[in-house]
Amino acid sequence: MVMRSRKKSMYSFMNDYSEGAHPRILELLNKSNYDQNAGYGQDVHSEKSREYIRKLIGKENADIHFIPGGTLTNLIVVSALLRPHQCVISADTGHINVHETGAIEATGHKVIAVPSVEGKLNPKAIHEVLYYHSDEHMVQPEMVYISNSTELGTIYSKAELTHISNICREKDLILYLDGARIGSALMSKYNDLTLKDIADLVDVFYIGGTKNGALLGEALVICNENLQEDFRYLIKQRGALMAKGFVMGIQFEALFQDDLFFNLAGHANRMAEKIANALKEYGYSFYSPPCTNQLFPIIPNHILECLAAKFDFSIYKRIGQDSSVIRLVTSWATTQKSVDSLIKALSKFGTI
Amino acid sequence: MVMRSRKKSMYSFMNDYSEGAHPRILELLNKSNYDQNAGYGQDVHSEKSREYIRKLIGKENADIHFIPGGTLTNLIVVSALLRPHQCVISADTGHINVHETGAIEATGHKVIAVPSVEGKLNPKAIHEVLYYHSDEHMVQPEMVYISNSTELGTIYSKAELTHISNICREKDLILYLDGARIGSALMSKYNDLTLKDIADLVDVFYIGGTKNGALLGEALVICNENLQEDFRYLIKQRGALMAKGFVMGIQFEALFQDDLFFNLAGHANRMAEKIANALKEYGYSFYSPPCTNQLFPIIPNHILECLAAKFDFSIYKRIGQDSSVIRLVTSWATTQKSVDSLIKALSKFGTI
Amino acid sequence: MVMRSRKKSMYSFMNDYSEGAHPRILELLNKSNYDQNAGYGQDVHSEKSREYIRKLIGKENADIHFIPGGTLTNLIVVSALLRPHQCVISADTGHINVHETGAIEATGHKVIAVPSVEGKLNPKAIHEVLYYHSDEHMVQPEMVYISNSTELGTIYSKAELTHISNICREKDLILYLDGARIGSALMSKYNDLTLKDIADLVDVFYIGGTKNGALLGEALVICNENLQEDFRYLIKQRGALMAKGFVMGIQFEALFQDDLFFNLAGHANRMAEKIANALKEYGYSFYSPPCTNQLFPIIPNHILECLAAKFDFSIYKRIGQDSSVIRLVTSWATTQKSVDSLIKALSKFGTI
Amino acid sequence: MVMRSRKKSMYSFMNDYSEGAHPRILELLNKSNYDQNAGYGQDVHSEKSREYIRKLIGKENADIHFIPGGTLTNLIVVSALLRPHQCVISADTGHINVHETGAIEATGHKVIAVPSVEGKLNPKAIHEVLYYHSDEHMVQPEMVYISNSTELGTIYSKAELTHISNICREKDLILYLDGARIGSALMSKYNDLTLKDIADLVDVFYIGGTKNGALLGEALVICNENLQEDFRYLIKQRGALMAKGFVMGIQFEALFQDDLFFNLAGHANRMAEKIANALKEYGYSFYSPPCTNQLFPIIPNHILECLAAKFDFSIYKRIGQDSSVIRLVTSWATTQKSVDSLIKALSKFGTI
Repeated sequence: MVMRSRKKSMYSFMNDYSEGAHPRILELLNKSNYDQNAGYGQDVHSEKSREYIRKLIGKENADIHFIPGGTLTNLIVVSALLRPHQCVISADTGHINVHETGAIEATGHKVIAVPSVEGKLNPKAIHEVLYYHSDEHMVQPEMVYISNSTELGTIYSKAELTHISNICREKDLILYLDGARIGSALMSKYNDLTLKDIADLVDVFYIGGTKNGALLGEALVICNENLQEDFRYLIKQRGALMAKGFVMGIQFEALFQDDLFFNLAGHANRMAEKIANALKEYGYSFYSPPCTNQLFPIIPNHILECLAAKFDFSIYKRIGQDSSVIRLVTSWATTQKSVDSLIKALSKFGTI
Repeated sequence: MVMRSRKKSMYSFMNDYSEGAHPRILELLNKSNYDQNAGYGQDVHSEKSREYIRKLIGKENADIHFIPGGTLTNLIVVSALLRPHQCVISADTGHINVHETGAIEATGHKVIAVPSVEGKLNPKAIHEVLYYHSDEHMVQPEMVYISNSTELGTIYSKAELTHISNICREKDLILYLDGARIGSALMSKYNDLTLKDIADLVDVFYIGGTKNGALLGEALVICNENLQEDFRYLIKQRGALMAKGFVMGIQFEALFQDDLFFNLAGHANRMAEKIANALKEYGYSFYSPPCTNQLFPIIPNHILECLAAKFDFSIYKRIGQDSSVIRLVTSWATTQKSVDSLIKALSKFGTI
Repeated sequence: MVMRSRKKSMYSFMNDYSEGAHPRILELLNKSNYDQNAGYGQDVHSEKSREYIRKLIGKENADIHFIPGGTLTNLIVVSALLRPHQCVISADTGHINVHETGAIEATGHKVIAVPSVEGKLNPKAIHEVLYYHSDEHMVQPEMVYISNSTELGTIYSKAELTHISNICREKDLILYLDGARIGSALMSKYNDLTLKDIADLVDVFYIGGTKNGALLGEALVICNENLQEDFRYLIKQRGALMAKGFVMGIQFEALFQDDLFFNLAGHANRMAEKIANALKEYGYSFYSPPCTNQLFPIIPNHILECLAAKFDFSIYKRIGQDSSVIRLVTSWATTQKSVDSLIKALSKFGTI
Repeated sequence: MVMRSRKKSMYSFMNDYSEGAHPRILELLNKSNYDQNAGYGQDVHSEKSREYIRKLIGKENADIHFIPGGTLTNLIVVSALLRPHQCVISADTGHINVHETGAIEATGHKVIAVPSVEGKLNPKAIHEVLYYHSDEHMVQPEMVYISNSTELGTIYSKAELTHISNICREKDLILYLDGARIGSALMSKYNDLTLKDIADLVDVFYIGGTKNGALLGEALVICNENLQEDFRYLIKQRGALMAKGFVMGIQFEALFQDDLFFNLAGHANRMAEKIANALKEYGYSFYSPPCTNQLFPIIPNHILECLAAKFDFSIYKRIGQDSSVIRLVTSWATTQKSVDSLIKALSKFGTI
């Protein structure tokens, strides 16, 4: 993905982590600023957040930890749960496979990348990996990694996730769901999963705060009680047990004490949908079906150049000589005005 | 160290990361909340902070990165700069040796722990390690790790740091200074080092924000230009390249655009000094000389019990049957009132 | 690959490491049995072997180490020469990618697997990897791994190896050649490379003894003097600095004091060629062109069943419902009689 | 330890791995040279050896693997059995702590070194480590490592080993015994342990072949059935699953089909005892009590110089200005003549 540097005057659809935090989060941080908290996530705010999430997923024994970022969460989960000779299966487009600078391998484990369709792991591919990895000369598959929404903005249906979950349970594989953008996935109008469904179907997942209105923070949820042992050690060892863990605890408290988390994702999705609808109307096609806050339209290069003069976004892939897939991302902070302005800019080129 | 859980009503001298952030930091976070920033630390706030720090240390080519925590910073620095067979020398009391759950070893490197005096690395010990590690059957010493202030609240004088620095340069060892509490060290009334001195004498160090008024964040400063290559890769791989890097950038901007960083540390030290003076007056002795925001007085156990009913603090070590070393920590947020209250509680036992 | 267990009475074409050592190697081991040797490869036999090899490749400063096995050699080389964020590019069929149980990843490094043709790395694929891995969110390519002969028994021509070498030098990549079966490659009748050519074109390679008549042992040759530093430490750390290093030294002395190494490989190739010629005559086709001591003919399953009753070999891959690719391997110890017997068995099925 | 290079004409008491293999081992290697064997330790010779050892220790379900060297064995065992945050406790003189170039740390685990007496782990030290390592900010002790005989040639009594074993079982720690010189330990005239006792008292141990008459090879014995899972994967991943595993299998067959293993160690001990007796007679004292094939006498430096002109040995430690501890090692191959010659050389200095 080609990243382009920010010019001050332009509006950015580059990603969903450009702005600070939702005002209600900042408010709670301000309000509780002088509370004295126990360190390392053992404070009352973190505990409250855990209770909100446990209630939502209907698992009072879920183990919940707040970790500052997604790559950290991924590398902790994988290295904590695999023995040295075991590996994790991921879609070839998976974040752990391509965008974490070998973070998983740096903890000693191979990522087995399998072909994907629209960013989603093909259940058949799991069987093929298991069939092929038959003896001790090869790594031993032990975990399946998926993300929802995916790197291409797509989501798993309840049927699809259930299918993968069933395979994992039958084959004794750990199922781990990267939820960096789980809010957007759950608020997609095409979604039929609840957070509770996900907690029932996977062993471990995380709820992304960074990309849904927090300053930072991901809530790691270990549903499978057999996998919970000693996680605080494992988090500490990777440098992720934050002294001021309560800074994340407070933010998740703000996000989950009512529907704020879902509302923020809903807003991002609505903004994306408006852009997607305009693009469709003008005849653009998409590299992957638009359903969450990440859009991957295919744009003729001469139009791309004009848009790039006014808006920040990333180019995902060149398609032949004349077109490109670009990535447009909306967030809790995306304004109606900026969306209108983008649509207006598109309108100048008419239907293509 | 025995940690005791927080009771709401008690005032805590447990550590310097109990409260949120200094109001001026929160203010700047609020003010710039809707700015759109480039991700991963390439934003204008981070760049400004870097410029402030570079100016302060007089090194325009210093490489500066913001990392969410101290253990993360330590493990990144060590693993980035050593080849697999190389090790780091640390005081036996060093944070990397005892309080990071083997984070350094988890990246593949041995920590050679050497005896220390008052938490400080003995330069003679470096020579002994070098003498002893003479062939390929043993790890190869390549880095010296020190912290300032130390785990025992003590500081290095300019002469002491220069001595260690000279050994490292002569023996071709990398000198790395962990500055989790560098603010308190520099503002100690016994200190004769400047931040610039430190930058001149070491190869790499970090400026701790978490323990000096920020919500989170450490500024890693790589002074030695030969050691700067590819650090963004290495930070990313360990999960420490934060999507919203600007959240740390803004905080360091607030801390270093004027003297805030130093003023906050100065306040913490003054609060500690008041407590230390009272303790001295009442005849208490100290496990290590009080000079920064961490105090290690030796307290008879019956007094300890009484204090523990009103104040939170940690017990560092039992001394025989009747006494204990406790650790009292002050911070930017410590109130005069709480200090007075502690002194008053002490006064009830009179001179011991 | 499906391995089947050995039945005593059957002749095995399973691999080239079924028997002990060539008699002349055993003889030298016996003869020098009571010599007292310095430990850890610093003995006179190892030194002699090094001199023979250095002379052969025309590099008096080559650094040469004897290591007990191929996987050990590969993991030592990769982990010794890469920084943590760097990766190695390999053909998808490469031994380090599929048959080392994640040994490379266990040292912290990603293997970037790229499509291959007949087991050989496509130079174009190197360019594509470099183009794609453009920023710090992805691993950094630093090394190219190839093997000669390959996992499919094919070999690189001088032109092909020169092409890859040129790319590596231009792009500042380390070129490492796994020579587990370098003897068979060099003695192929299709080969136009010398051992000296290889040493000139790559940075590091190894000469396989285990699969060419030794009890065990691989000679790691570091041609590029910039990459030689501290290798004894790195070998020791991975457990590969053998106390009785001279046991390998003596064997390489026997192999390289005259042409024994090449003669043994030549014998294995000739035995394979006879089998290949018979297979061709009977109309069988091959999964990869036969040129060394590993053959990959495509065999109808009913014939396979009959052969399997008399001979041991491995099934490489099923092809549709009715055929399979099998792997037949010859060695220094393969007898003319067993080859004749296999050909006779094939003859019963006539031309297919 | 200062190693000095070998001069051809001198007799070496430097170590117990200077010569090849006992003739009966070579004989069996020769005899079975043309047998075709299954690869990777799944051959009949390895299986026979396993049966001999299982019978000897009375554990028919013991899992036994042949590994080419001691450091490899140690790093495989530790990394296979610990989770990432767990550590191993060792005497400060332990091989894994000082003489393996950080091999254990390279797999991610801290070695907690505790003070030792005469090379032996003090049981009290285990309790202290457990007491101190109380929370997730520190590594979690999970394994105790001892060696028998120790690095100082001393041995554990049955009472001592039972004491440590009881602590480990009570505290749920894995007990691992490094038996690089277990033969010499068991044949010591001060020994009251059998191989079966050891197998009953520890979870995992290895029987050293390299230092007791084999060309190479250590037999890893996993007594505790809960710890056996997937070990072939773990051995392969570290590069220690030898293609020609049968080369080690044959040697252990020769060692254990009758009493050869014990007889060789007995010889080494007798040779050492003669030297020790002479040293005692001449009034020399010892750094650690002589009981196996490693002696650590304290020698005045002027005598050391004279001895060094005729014999090879290593200097373990300087004692003050005038004396040194030297290490003299005997082996299965040590001749009566060389022992007599050393004693004669000593006699020239008379009683000291």
